Amino acid sequence: MFFEGSEKKLEIIVNASAPKLRSLDRTFWLKLVAASNADILSSISNEYCDAYLLSESSLFVWDDRIVMLTCGASTLAESACYCIEHLGEQAIAYVCYQRKNEYYAHLQASSFSDDVLRLRHFIAGQAYRMGHLDSHHHYIFTTDKHYQASRLDTTNELLMYHISGTVADYLRGDQQSTIQISQMLQLEQLFNGFSVDQHLFSPLGYSINGIRGTEYFTIHITPQENSSYVSVETNIDISSTQVDIFAELVRLLQPNSFDIIGFNSHIANKPFPHYLCLSHCAMTIEQGFNIHFSHYQQNGLEVLSPTLL
Amino acid sequence: MFFEGSEKKLEIIVNASAPKLRSLDRTFWLKLVAASNADILSSISNEYCDAYLLSESSLFVWDDRIVMLTCGASTLAESACYCIEHLGEQAIAYVCYQRKNEYYAHLQASSFSDDVLRLRHFIAGQAYRMGHLDSHHHYIFTTDKHYQASRLDTTNELLMYHISGTVADYLRGDQQSTIQISQMLQLEQLFNGFSVDQHLFSPLGYSINGIRGTEYFTIHITPQENSSYVSVETNIDISSTQVDIFAELVRLLQPNSFDIIGFNSHIANKPFPHYLCLSHCAMTIEQGFNIHFSHYQQNGLEVLSPTLL
Repeated sequence: MFFEGSEKKLEIIVNASAPKLRSLDRTFWLKLVAASNADILSSISNEYCDAYLLSESSLFVWDDRIVMLTCGASTLAESACYCIEHLGEQAIAYVCYQRKNEYYAHLQASSFSDDVLRLRHFIAGQAYRMGHLDSHHHYIFTTDKHYQASRLDTTNELLMYHISGTVADYLRGDQQSTIQISQMLQLEQLFNGFSVDQHLFSPLGYSINGIRGTEYFTIHITPQENSSYVSVETNIDISSTQVDIFAELVRLLQPNSFDIIGFNSHIANKPFPHYLCLSHCAMTIEQGFNIHFSHYQQNGLEVLSPTLL
Repeated sequence: MFFEGSEKKLEIIVNASAPKLRSLDRTFWLKLVAASNADILSSISNEYCDAYLLSESSLFVWDDRIVMLTCGASTLAESACYCIEHLGEQAIAYVCYQRKNEYYAHLQASSFSDDVLRLRHFIAGQAYRMGHLDSHHHYIFTTDKHYQASRLDTTNELLMYHISGTVADYLRGDQQSTIQISQMLQLEQLFNGFSVDQHLFSPLGYSINGIRGTEYFTIHITPQENSSYVSVETNIDISSTQVDIFAELVRLLQPNSFDIIGFNSHIANKPFPHYLCLSHCAMTIEQGFNIHFSHYQQNGLEVLSPTLL
């Protein structure tokens, strides 16, 4: 029943001189996704963005950038290489490649070091680890090129591990519907006015993409007992919403631990009731992103049973 | 500068009908150690025990049992298989094979699952994981055979990660001596009356074996910044010593986190000042061992800098 829910993530921003990404033909996107060993399941579009739901997570395409997340043992660095090679290194303004904390790193097709070696065949960049190796940590590769991000270019990621409670039980049950899941997660209240595209996986798993103008959110749930994982990512400024989106999702999904990763975000080191922030790591890169990583854990002793293997 | 300090551990107990293990010739031990890709560096002996210091940790041999620890990317499961095959499965009363929390699981020659598959070619047994996959955890394989351990057959293991302070700085320095290290660790006070065998590794690292009658202790230090690890293991009843040995070593080495593993031990869930016990897992196996695993972390937010890779 093991499935590695935790994602690799890729963001590529192109120069003004590059072709508009949304004008590229479907073959390009099929090949880009195939390079990660994933498939396109469905898509939604609005004036600004095409949002693809993938067999392994999501791809969002705007005219000047893509954001792609892939879980499992997918090979997202290959999609990055394919994209840079196809568009030409000159067309690229900025690349950010991330790997989130994995349950079973040894089952991956490559290590982060392998990925960085591969990426550096195509583009120069710096690689960092945020957080201790033996605890939750986050890997990030960013390009060296001259690029200046807007301070308003924000992304917030919430990565929850070992979910519990009523919603988690429902997600592990036999009978599920996308309507029921989005209701239980209060997604209409949390992400009001978004067009959404949802998918239930067999035997377990749920994905949703949402877009509203240039904004997006995406949620991926791997509910499997002992290795459950839920990721939430959005480019809306969650510090200014009426409802505290991340606090609400943590309350609903009751993870044993979670990480928050922010780019130009205002929620670093935020207190969460019943959780301790165990470690925090931040850096500002030349390209105008302040990046922070915080690891939270339920406050109090957790008494575990041994897992028979 | 990375070295995986965390060990695999093997304990094999033989039946009364088996040959006395200390009577086996040196070739047997050389081959057993070579199966793990390790070498014997030196040894000390007393009436009951031969203690070998290895290039990758330690081997202790009594007439009825062995305890072997190997670090790095060593292949200790192969030593287990060699021993069982050579002595004959009939001669074996009990086998326990453990893998401690690793920094870089993907650099190991095998996963724990691989090791269990291999061991099961030679002997039947149960495999468990204690602790969540994404936090500190411990793997353990124990044989199914009828065997009854004495309640006095105790082992205590203290595994420290990310050490800091004066002693840690000394251990990372250019000038070191075994005398100075054992003085800084107060080993004469903590393990009084033990004969010891110590070794300094190049460029860094320290190992010590100590024996006193049938008792042993062993300490292995990998001080490397960002991946430091110190293991302490002994079969003395540390709940009845004058000095609280583990508390003292934690105070001296100031780890960011540590795990305690006990077999028929009385120190499960012990409070340590300035540390939180985040998780605890215990089980009693038919062979008469109560096994517990506890994971501790420094109380308070740790602010980390990103590590440039």
